[in-house]
Order: sequence, then C-alpha cells, then structure tokens
Amino acid sequence: MRTRPLKVALLGCGVVGSEVARIMTTHADDLTARIGAPVELAGVAVRRPDRVREGIAPELVTTDATALVKRGDIDVVVEVIGGIEPARTLITTAFEHGASVVSANKALLAQDGAALHAAAEEHGRDLYYEAAVAGAIPLIRPLRESLAGDKINRVMGIVNGTTNFILDKMDSTGAGYQEALDEATALGYAEADPTADVEGFDAAAKAAILAAIAFHTRVRLDDVHREGMTEVTAADFASAKEMGCTIKLLAICERAEDGGSVTARVHPAMIPLSHPLASVRGAYNAVFVESDAAGQLMFYGPGAGGSPTASAVLGDIVAVCRNRIGGATGPGESAYAALPVSPMGDVVTRYHISLDVADKPGVLAQVATVFAEHGVSIDTVRQSGKDGEASLVVVTHRASDAALTGTVEALRKLDTVRGVASIMRVEGE
Amino acid sequence: MRTRPLKVALLGCGVVGSEVARIMTTHADDLTARIGAPVELAGVAVRRPDRVREGIAPELVTTDATALVKRGDIDVVVEVIGGIEPARTLITTAFEHGASVVSANKALLAQDGAALHAAAEEHGRDLYYEAAVAGAIPLIRPLRESLAGDKINRVMGIVNGTTNFILDKMDSTGAGYQEALDEATALGYAEADPTADVEGFDAAAKAAILAAIAFHTRVRLDDVHREGMTEVTAADFASAKEMGCTIKLLAICERAEDGGSVTARVHPAMIPLSHPLASVRGAYNAVFVESDAAGQLMFYGPGAGGSPTASAVLGDIVAVCRNRIGGATGPGESAYAALPVSPMGDVVTRYHISLDVADKPGVLAQVATVFAEHGVSIDTVRQSGKDGEASLVVVTHRASDAALTGTVEALRKLDTVRGVASIMRVEGE
Ligand SMILES: NC(=O)c1ccc[n+]([C@@H]2O[C@H](COP(=O)([O-])OP(=O)(O)OC[C@H]3O[C@@H](n4cnc5c(N)ncnc54)[C@H](OP(=O)(O)O)[C@@H]3O)[C@@H](O)[C@H]2O)c1
Ligand SMILES: NC(=O)c1ccc[n+]([C@@H]2O[C@H](COP(=O)([O-])OP(=O)(O)OC[C@H]3O[C@@H](n4cnc5c(N)ncnc54)[C@H](OP(=O)(O)O)[C@@H]3O)[C@@H](O)[C@H]2O)c1
Repeated sequence: MRTRPLKVALLGCGVVGSEVARIMTTHADDLTARIGAPVELAGVAVRRPDRVREGIAPELVTTDATALVKRGDIDVVVEVIGGIEPARTLITTAFEHGASVVSANKALLAQDGAALHAAAEEHGRDLYYEAAVAGAIPLIRPLRESLAGDKINRVMGIVNGTTNFILDKMDSTGAGYQEALDEATALGYAEADPTADVEGFDAAAKAAILAAIAFHTRVRLDDVHREGMTEVTAADFASAKEMGCTIKLLAICERAEDGGSVTARVHPAMIPLSHPLASVRGAYNAVFVESDAAGQLMFYGPGAGGSPTASAVLGDIVAVCRNRIGGATGPGESAYAALPVSPMGDVVTRYHISLDVADKPGVLAQVATVFAEHGVSIDTVRQSGKDGEASLVVVTHRASDAALTGTVEALRKLDTVRGVASIMRVEGE
Repeated sequence: MRTRPLKVALLGCGVVGSEVARIMTTHADDLTARIGAPVELAGVAVRRPDRVREGIAPELVTTDATALVKRGDIDVVVEVIGGIEPARTLITTAFEHGASVVSANKALLAQDGAALHAAAEEHGRDLYYEAAVAGAIPLIRPLRESLAGDKINRVMGIVNGTTNFILDKMDSTGAGYQEALDEATALGYAEADPTADVEGFDAAAKAAILAAIAFHTRVRLDDVHREGMTEVTAADFASAKEMGCTIKLLAICERAEDGGSVTARVHPAMIPLSHPLASVRGAYNAVFVESDAAGQLMFYGPGAGGSPTASAVLGDIVAVCRNRIGGATGPGESAYAALPVSPMGDVVTRYHISLDVADKPGVLAQVATVFAEHGVSIDTVRQSGKDGEASLVVVTHRASDAALTGTVEALRKLDTVRGVASIMRVEGE
C-alpha cells in the first residue's frame, strides 16, 4: 500500500461539508483500506472563519478558497459551496492545478456541465457528482456505468424532497398548498424562501443532469420545461383520488418513440396509486428508470440532508482517489449521441382536464367537437352539475402537449365554457 | 479513439448468453462510443454446436471453451455457463491468458469468490459480476463503489424471483404452497426442479456475495444460514395478515450491534405491509440497504430473465473494456475488515410463534414462564380456543435465535403444549 496520503481540499463546510469532514475523520481507517492509501483533509474553505467547527482543526480553515485550490499538492477538491460563482471558477482552477473534483452542485452542473467536463478532460482529471441528484441514492453511477450497455428510454423521478413532503401532506391530510408548505417550513423541510423547490428549479436542474447522462446528449437547464407545484389544490387531489391516482412533482426525461429526439420536463402529474413512485412518502426521493434490456428499475432513498449527501460525496472521493492511484480516470462526459432536445409541445402524454361549463343541453357535444378538431382523443368524460352550473372532467388518450394546448385555447373561447379549473398530466400508466 | 477492437469470448449462449450476443450486435455503435473502441464477438463456446443460434455466425461457435480462452487475443471472457465446473477452471485459465472476466455465476462466486478474486489480482485483471445478484438491478456496483465511503449495517432483500412469485400468489389468492408452485411452473417462473429456488440455495449464494461486499469480509455459502419456504402455509399468511404483515423469503446480511461480527441468512419472514419490500410483487426483486450516513436505500427491478441479466453483463463488459483501454483495473476484492461470521444462534430478531395448547387454566402462565426463563420477552399474546383445544399466538420482543430455540425446545416438553404449529421471524420494523 502506498503511504503518501491523498490530500482533499474541502470548499464549503455547511450542511454537507461538515458531514464530509466528520466522516473523513471517523471512518479514516476504512477509507484508507478501501482506497489503498490514507486520505487527509488538507484545508477547508469557508466564508466565516471564526465559526466554531467541531472536529476541524482551526489551522485548516481559510477564507481563501482560491489559494487552497492553487496549492498544487491537492489531489481532490470537494466543492460543497453551491451556486454558480465562485464554485465554477474554483472548479476550473482546481483542474488547472492538477486536482480532480467531486461536487454536489446541481445548479452549476445543469448550467455548465459541458464546460466543466471539458476542463476535466483537458487536464486528464475526474469530475464526479453523485450527490448532485437525489442525495444519497446511487443514481449517477448506475446510469453512467451499470446501464452503460443498455438503452435508457425514460427516467422519471421524485427528485425534490421538499415538494414531495408538501404533496404527501396534502394527499394524506386534505390540506391546501399553503397549509402544507407552512408545516414543511416549521419542520425544517422547506427553506425560508422555498422558490427553488416549489417552482421546480431544483428538480429541473436534476432533470437536465439525468437526461444528459441517460441519453448521452447535452441537456441544459434551459432545455427543461418547468412547471412548479404551487397551484396544485386540494380539489386536484380529490380528482386524483377518483381516478385511483395521487399527485407528485415529477422530473421526466424521455426518448421520443422514434428514438430521434429527447425531452426533459418537470411538472406536477397524476400517477396511479399502483405505481411504485406513488408510495414514496415524506421527503424521500425515488427514480424510476426504463430501459430496453433491463426493463423497469427503481432507486429509492433520502434525497437530501447533510449525512446522506455526504455518503454520496464520500463514495465519489473514494472512486476519484482510487483512479488517481491507478493513474486512470473514470468515465467522463458522454455526449456522442447529440440528440436534439424537443420542446414541450412534442411531449406525448395523457391529460386530466376539469372544466366549469354551463348546465345546458349540447355542451358536451360542443366540448367533444373541440377535442376532436385538435386530434385529441377522449378516454372518459364525467359530467356533474346543479343550478345551471356544471363541471366536466375529461381524461384524454395520449396526445401531444401542443395539441392539448390548442384544445384548451379553443375551449376557453366557447361561450358555454365558464373556465378551465385545472389541467393535469397523467403519467406512469 | 483507438480502432483495434476489443475481443469478447462468450462462454455459454443460453438464456443469458444469447441476449448478450444479441445486444452486442444491435447496440454495436453505442457500445463503441461508450467504450471508446469497437467490441467484437470473437468466439462463442457451447455444448451443442449444431443448434441454430440466431444472429451468431456459425464459424464463431465452438465446443472447445478451453481453447477459446487460451487463444491469447481475448480481452474479455464472459462466463454465462453456470455451475462450478468447467466455469471455475475456464475463468482461472482466462486470467492466466490475459483476459478480464465478466460472470453471472452466483453459485461459483459464493463458493470460490476469494480464489477467483486472487487469480484476477495475480494477473492484474478484472473480475466483474453485477449480474450474479438480482439480475438487472444495479447493486454490486452501488454497494462496492457508491457506498464505498459509508458504513453498511444491513442488506435485506428479495433476491429470488421464483419464490417471490409463489409467496405473492399465496398472499393474494390464499393458495397453498403446492398450488402456487404449480402455477409458477406452468407460467415458466419455476424450473422443473425448483429445489435451488424454494429451498433457498440460490438466495443463500446471493446473500454470501452481498455480505462479502457490504462488510469487506469473506463470506462463503457455508456461512449463510438457510431455510427454504416450502413449509410456509396459508395459515401463516392468515397470521401475518392479522399482524399487518406479509411473508417474504428474505436474504439478510447484518452487522452485529457491537460492530464486531456479521451474519448472513435466508429464511421466510413476516414483514410489515408498510415496509417497501412488502409491496414487491410477482417475480420482481428488491434490496433494501441501511448504512450509517446514507440511511435507508432501496433498489428494485427484474431479478432474472435473459435480457435484464444481459443488461447487467453488458454494463460490466463496458466497464472492463474501459479499464483495459485505460490500462487500469476496477476495485477488486475488499476483505480487509475480516470480521467473524457469527452463527445463526447469535442473530437477534423478533418471533411469531403459534402453539396448540390444552384449553385449561394456567397454561398461559406456564408458557410465559418458559419464555421468561430463557430470557425471551413477550410483546403480545393472543389466546383462542374451543372444545378443550386452544391456540396461543406469541409475538416476542427482540431475542437471540439461540434463546428462541431453547424456548421452543422447552415449550415442546410441556404437557400442556400439544404442538408448535409455526415459528416465523418478524423483520423490517
Ligand atoms: N443540503 C443538502 O441536503 C444538499 C443535498 C444535495 C446537494 N446539496 C448541494 O451541496 C452544496 C452545499 O449545500 P449545503 O446545504 O451544505 O450548503 P450550506 O449549508 O449553505 O454551506 C455552504 C458552505 O459554503 C461556504 N461558502 C459560501 N460561500 C463561500 C465562498 N465564497 N468561499 C468559501 N466558502 C464559501 C459556507 O461558509 P460558512 O460556513 O462560513 O457560511 C458554508 O460552509 C450545494 O451545491 C447544494 O445544492 C445539498
Ligand atoms: N437465466 C437467468 O435469468 C439468470 C439470471 C441471473 C444469473 N444467471 C446466471 O447466468 C448463468 C447462465 O444462465 P442461463 O440461464 O443463461 O443458462 P442456460 O440457458 O442453461 O445456458 C447455459 C449455456 O452454457 C452452455 N454450456 C453448458 N455447459 C457447457 C460447457 N461445458 N462448455 C461450453 N458451454 C457450455 C450451454 O450450451 P448449449 O446452448 O449448447 O446447451 C448454454 O448455451 C448461470 O450462472 C446463471 O446462474 C441467469
């Protein structure tokens, strides 16, 4: 066994970073045995140097992250600061100075993954980021390596714990969105500003990363269609129940049926209670993968939290250290397929539409005509009404998002349609 | 990109091998892009050379597997023959002649994993076997790599599809074991001789492999306590339902609470309906993993079948080829922890015991005394009876298997205990 220790620089020592440092200390002997050499915490960059950081020698702490990554003797830089800058510049500087990088930064990877991969390749170094998607759940490595001989057709997952907690609350208690959000905030599941979670930005970043890996194609955050879940109502859950469904915020990456293009999107959707994703409770995450040969796989576990996320970071540290000792690098970016990313209009799925309509003869016929004119075929219709007002619930067969959008626009123009109460996609059937 | 193709020798071309060959042909371009060089099927060893094998050039087929692995120009030998010999000798010969090996052979790996790993290491080659446990489900790689920085405490899984199909049938239809087995056989889920599955041999081999990887310790098939599921009755399912449980054949690998030893076992057990493993239906497999930092993870998917298993084999082929091109090897055997494997008597869990007893005063007190004398604490007792005969259902708190065995022996000696109708462990709470 080689004895010169591998040196790890930790950029950020917050929720995730402090757990990485703790495990590196408490599991030092195991890490040494698994890597084949000791690993040493060589420096810790933070913003506030004077905070007490349990278990971390004060002389390791610095506010000068740039100097730390430029030292030249660092083997692995672990970036757990988050955000775009200074993380991006620090990572590229790390490669320039000979280090490999482990990051948990989904926002940065979704925006600039290609450039970061290129920098890693240019300098012959590794860029690993298992922790960036679904926290502790091994997902990047299985997609990138275990399924490397297979053809992935769909990745559909619950990749944001905060929103799953809120939706699960709404489902189980009948609460409205605001009430469930308040509870999530009180329990620490939602941040003071929950925008990144509830508007789907966090899930969209993860969808971009997953799609890129699954389809060997560059997919950026901007390519991901994104709808948040702030408008999901208790009434939507009631409708879902009537259909034997629940509602989840899903990240869905799909290969088109003809194989010639891909799509990536995040939005709330109804899924049948019998689907494995339907029973994912609380803040847990789960990702369902469909491939040609393997069929249907699911990966389930905690999607966030300091210690689960640190588990994923540590797995990457071990892999990257082993690669360095062996003089090799792991799989880099694989974007050879370069498939076009289609817009949302091309996505084909089913829809659940609730309309408020006038309660008079002929309304259903009018509505049905509009669907037919737009090529959207109706699976079931349920009509109910009283006092001159009525509601129509239409569930369609598979149709393109563009066709559905056209249908809804035309429905809104009908005199007899007072309003479109909700439109929800139906997935996982 | 390098252009000399990597040469793959396929040993066995049955259920799994024929799918490996098919995918190598249909996905050739993708494999080339992902590996960084073309892969070529250089030879296929079988027993019956004259069988028609679709998509395989007849001149590649040979009955001389030994000559094939000795050719010297083979990069990767894929062993999908199964059984101990000639697979074992072929694999060691392959290493001696410079090839890396991908195998799906759980029986061989559980029996001789250490020797095979040593041969691989001696010759600086890879031995990969993702397909040996839980078919298509990425499991070996996540345990060995993604969780390499974590401490795994328990692996508990449904790793045999045949028995899960049978138990699921019994649960959902109330059928007895034989009836459910007959249906499984008729539908092709059980082999003509189902012994390896229903007696737990197949699951025990997988438990040995999983325990070895999870605990960095050599665990052989002989170390695994094994009980089949042929004695599970419709009455057991009725008892399970009363407890809010179902019954699964589980492979359980555990670290003792003091961390100083491990156990591995296969037996039917009750698990709560709320446990993620309880809803694994039909022939699907799923493995639940608990670790210090990551918490609870689950991996779910098809555990067998030609094409799912081939997906796992192909993932290994890609990894092994990439390693060869990079001049590196992946992680080999990791047995540094060398923890003792404790016997079944040391396993601590809960028990559900049904007793046929005389219906007279004082019986419960007698029975309770026997439990107390053996240090097994009772959680609940349910008494029911008519016509001088009665039954007692006892559910215990956690106790060692040795204490429970002692308790049951003593109970059998009581005049008032007419018989022990069933003993079932309760897991996953
Ligand atoms: N938290 C999770 O559950 C989770 C899960 C998956 C992925 N992630 C990802 O992991 C990353 C870190 O998340 P986190 O929750 O650990 O964040 P956090 O608790 O806010 O910690 C951020 C750390 O970065 C330090 N920092 C901020 N700006 C810096 C700068 N300019 N130079 C040096 N250090 C700086 C902070 O220093 P001070 O300590 O001095 O403030 C702090 O230690 C993010 O990319 C996040 O998306 C987090
Ligand atoms: N089937 C599954 O779902 C599954 C799942 C996971 C793992 N596995 C494992 O994969 C391996 C293969 O299973 P399988 O189901 O594909 O078996 P199989 O259908 O019985 O195929 C065995 C193949 O090996 C060939 N063979 C037998 N003895 C040979 C010898 N002495 N020399 C050369 N070739 C020989 C046979 O030749 P002929 O074609 O001429 O008979 C046949 O092609 C086993 O280790 C099994 O445990 C299987």
